[in-house]
Amino acid sequence: MTEQHTALGLQDSTEVLYRISARLAERFAGVFAAETVERYVFESYTSLARTARISTHLPATTEHFANDRLSALATSRDPAPSEVPEVLFVCVRNAGRSQMAAALLTVEAKGRIRVRSAGSMPAAELDPAVIAAMSEMGLDLSASYPKPLTDDVVRASDVVITMGCGDSCPIYPGKHYEDWDLADPAQQSLKAVRAVRDEIHDHVRALVASLLDKPAPSTEGTSS
Amino acid sequence: MTEQHTALGLQDSTEVLYRISARLAERFAGVFAAETVERYVFESYTSLARTARISTHLPATTEHFANDRLSALATSRDPAPSEVPEVLFVCVRNAGRSQMAAALLTVEAKGRIRVRSAGSMPAAELDPAVIAAMSEMGLDLSASYPKPLTDDVVRASDVVITMGCGDSCPIYPGKHYEDWDLADPAQQSLKAVRAVRDEIHDHVRALVASLLDKPAPSTEGTSS
Repeated sequence: MTEQHTALGLQDSTEVLYRISARLAERFAGVFAAETVERYVFESYTSLARTARISTHLPATTEHFANDRLSALATSRDPAPSEVPEVLFVCVRNAGRSQMAAALLTVEAKGRIRVRSAGSMPAAELDPAVIAAMSEMGLDLSASYPKPLTDDVVRASDVVITMGCGDSCPIYPGKHYEDWDLADPAQQSLKAVRAVRDEIHDHVRALVASLLDKPAPSTEGTSS
Repeated sequence: MTEQHTALGLQDSTEVLYRISARLAERFAGVFAAETVERYVFESYTSLARTARISTHLPATTEHFANDRLSALATSRDPAPSEVPEVLFVCVRNAGRSQMAAALLTVEAKGRIRVRSAGSMPAAELDPAVIAAMSEMGLDLSASYPKPLTDDVVRASDVVITMGCGDSCPIYPGKHYEDWDLADPAQQSLKAVRAVRDEIHDHVRALVASLLDKPAPSTEGTSS
């Protein structure tokens, strides 16, 4: 009963995680305590490890995810209004809809909007048909990864757009919430995914117009 | 396109979460910075909100979960060996097997073992048949809740017992890992759940014997 299961689970990445923590603590020096940064790194690692299928790139992905979360937290604490609108897409698996929406908004916004995505129950990896459909447009999502919805990214956002994830996103004051009603591309054919992609693209163009083209805080916006 | 979805999602619990943060920061004063405690509270809330079905008790559950995680983290940082063994049960949903194992070990250990459980992809709530099967033994699991596997509880544990959650648990040095091969009680009849419960009970008794009855760190342990 007391055999060590060496083949079970992930390899020990403790040393790598401490090195990542040191790098990020330096980057966020004066903003966050080293203790906070280290907790972010280790918990980001475990939250990705819980659901990721392949653990090879997990330390690199952890560094990216923790850095993004700490940046979001720093943004949310900055009392000055953000220079660019911050948009968060949330779906269940962060493997299809929210990933396509984030990539398409990044293209359409051309640096004028900060874009993030997350999932309420992140999948093990992006749907292959989603990667293929985006690749047809020249957008490479092969380095993207499903990640759980966290408090920091919701808090940093001006606009939160949900896509079929129900009540799983905390509601904070001062944010604009929208729900986009879209088909789920999971397990769908490439043809079906293309249709979802193009529908998201239409939504995204309208969002860009509403966020960037409105001349003043009037209630008359561009409507889709 | 720009309507506010007031009916969508959870209510704003920000003020409640700040009050919980203040209470826990006081409890962990001198151990953790207030910034760390606040991050624990807010991220614990969001991680539960992502998957919980009913949000009524979410603030109270958040305080319990954050307190347990901070206690685990404090334990893992204490250089002195823990006075009682710390055992963590991990299954996929933290809705059946790991919950039954934790309750049964708590009964059998009579305070001599610190028991925790977690899931790699936590369910919305405990399985009703699991609650019923444990209730037959006089064990009330109605206040238990599925919660995600976090770094802190793995780190605090001396023994990590996985139950069908594959590679989703980080492997750290100096811990004893076991995998128990059990049927998944999800969607099963009460009769089937009883059988799983009793099988877990046998495993748990053997675990208690191996952890508490061995006279010295010899390799001869009680075997199941």
